[in-house]
Amino acid sequence: MNAKLTIIGSGSALPTKNNFPTSQLLEFRNKQFLIDCGEGTQIRMRQMNLKNNHIGHIFISHLHGDHCFGLMGLISSFGMLNHTSDIHIHAHPDLEKLMKPQLKYFCEQLPFQVIFCPINPAVNEIIFEDRTVQVSSIPLKHRVPCCGFLFEEKSSDRHIIREMIDFYKIPVWQIGKIKQGEDFTTEEGELIPNDKLTLPPTSPIRYAYCSDTAYTEKIIPIIEGVDLLFHEATFMEDELFRAKATQHSTARQAAEIAKKANVKKLIIGHYSARYSHKTALLNEARQVFEHTELGEDMKSYEF
Amino acid sequence: MNAKLTIIGSGSALPTKNNFPTSQLLEFRNKQFLIDCGEGTQIRMRQMNLKNNHIGHIFISHLHGDHCFGLMGLISSFGMLNHTSDIHIHAHPDLEKLMKPQLKYFCEQLPFQVIFCPINPAVNEIIFEDRTVQVSSIPLKHRVPCCGFLFEEKSSDRHIIREMIDFYKIPVWQIGKIKQGEDFTTEEGELIPNDKLTLPPTSPIRYAYCSDTAYTEKIIPIIEGVDLLFHEATFMEDELFRAKATQHSTARQAAEIAKKANVKKLIIGHYSARYSHKTALLNEARQVFEHTELGEDMKSYEF
Repeated sequence: MNAKLTIIGSGSALPTKNNFPTSQLLEFRNKQFLIDCGEGTQIRMRQMNLKNNHIGHIFISHLHGDHCFGLMGLISSFGMLNHTSDIHIHAHPDLEKLMKPQLKYFCEQLPFQVIFCPINPAVNEIIFEDRTVQVSSIPLKHRVPCCGFLFEEKSSDRHIIREMIDFYKIPVWQIGKIKQGEDFTTEEGELIPNDKLTLPPTSPIRYAYCSDTAYTEKIIPIIEGVDLLFHEATFMEDELFRAKATQHSTARQAAEIAKKANVKKLIIGHYSARYSHKTALLNEARQVFEHTELGEDMKSYEF
Repeated sequence: MNAKLTIIGSGSALPTKNNFPTSQLLEFRNKQFLIDCGEGTQIRMRQMNLKNNHIGHIFISHLHGDHCFGLMGLISSFGMLNHTSDIHIHAHPDLEKLMKPQLKYFCEQLPFQVIFCPINPAVNEIIFEDRTVQVSSIPLKHRVPCCGFLFEEKSSDRHIIREMIDFYKIPVWQIGKIKQGEDFTTEEGELIPNDKLTLPPTSPIRYAYCSDTAYTEKIIPIIEGVDLLFHEATFMEDELFRAKATQHSTARQAAEIAKKANVKKLIIGHYSARYSHKTALLNEARQVFEHTELGEDMKSYEF
């Protein structure tokens, strides 16, 4: 397994019997990233026995309740469960103003710090990076400032061919440099070009999360070719007028973005409460982009 | 049916697979009263198809997250569902300070007003009444200011015996007075005592809600003889030290209160997340007070 996306909630503003409001957990490179945190996120996590010890970063796309009302309960419970690593919340700066008084009142003695990392949803920029992963904002088109997130593995080293180490008697101290692309000179002075010694690095994993948004082709250059795209599909095409009015997308529009951006796979979600069965949404999307799957609460997708 | 209590969530601070945080819906006299509103209350309501058009009053026992983190989501969704009657929130005055900025930010154009009705949890007093129902606070013993609630039907009129109206030719305009206890004088001047004309009124329905609290006998005079008592039972007796330290009760203690207060029936709940099966809690309580039932999420109790 390279990466795993778990849909915690695939609903929208009004939760339904089966769909909690939006939240997702992305796991790769031994890290866990929580994306949005609607009401009941911590409850779904308990229902799934989802381990969350490695959550250190939470990304909030925008400040509508169905994307952030679960934060207080989650943080409060993390406190009781002896979560120890600090929690960084990447969100529009207004969230800090709204949450600080609540954290002070309800979560006085947490065993970790809650650190707010303000983002500007209007621009496409790197908002988090460490040694192996980087996260960028994807400006979206919604009724309030809103952005998606592009999670990318950083380019890894080339893979050295084991047999070549023995054959050319490559000393250990040179292996690092060769993995980074350098050629090798044998003791006899023969130059061995790098491409004879190594194979190309595994292509980095890329996941793009786009919710909530009206149809906008501006995101295509940013998400071009990702391994997995989550794109909201609040409505079906027969509710296009409503999608436009509320600045959401239809299943068909989500698929059009996936097709134009040449992504490997599309998952749709953020369904309006009016759809109790989702097959029609899936069919609508698949007519445009075959590699589409339905996002479902408590289901994981490996990629 | 006289009254119906629906347990929306029977859990405590940490939600579990089956137990959402605390919330209850009490229905009687064509009214709906929501008691506490932990995270996920609106979700459970949707899961139960619970109609909530008649909720106009919400009673919050204390400001711990598991009793109030569901308020923002609930109110926000009521707005989208075109709930029209005003919502009165009876709670410690701090709640207004915490919620006002959030309501302003997330719920700008609600089709109803949210009215905060501050209560003083330290005293036993009437905090709400209308023509047929009154609600009083029950001071509890917890780590923060906390009170339970006593819901009481107001005494109804005596029942006039139909045959007596015909026999004594009682005029319609006198019936109201007789129902209220007056005697009747016939045209011939004969005095008919009230108890010959009427039967006693149906005894008023009384429900007492006591969560969260350490064992305290001070509540007994207030809840004496109620039809139904909900008393928290966070722990079992073998965790008595923990119950004391956190100012909660054991199942045995809840039953002792029920017995001493001579209530008709006890429901326990607010279970610690450590108990995946609740039978042992029920058995412990029933050893002291036989008429005990387990509170369970999404279950209704008529009384």
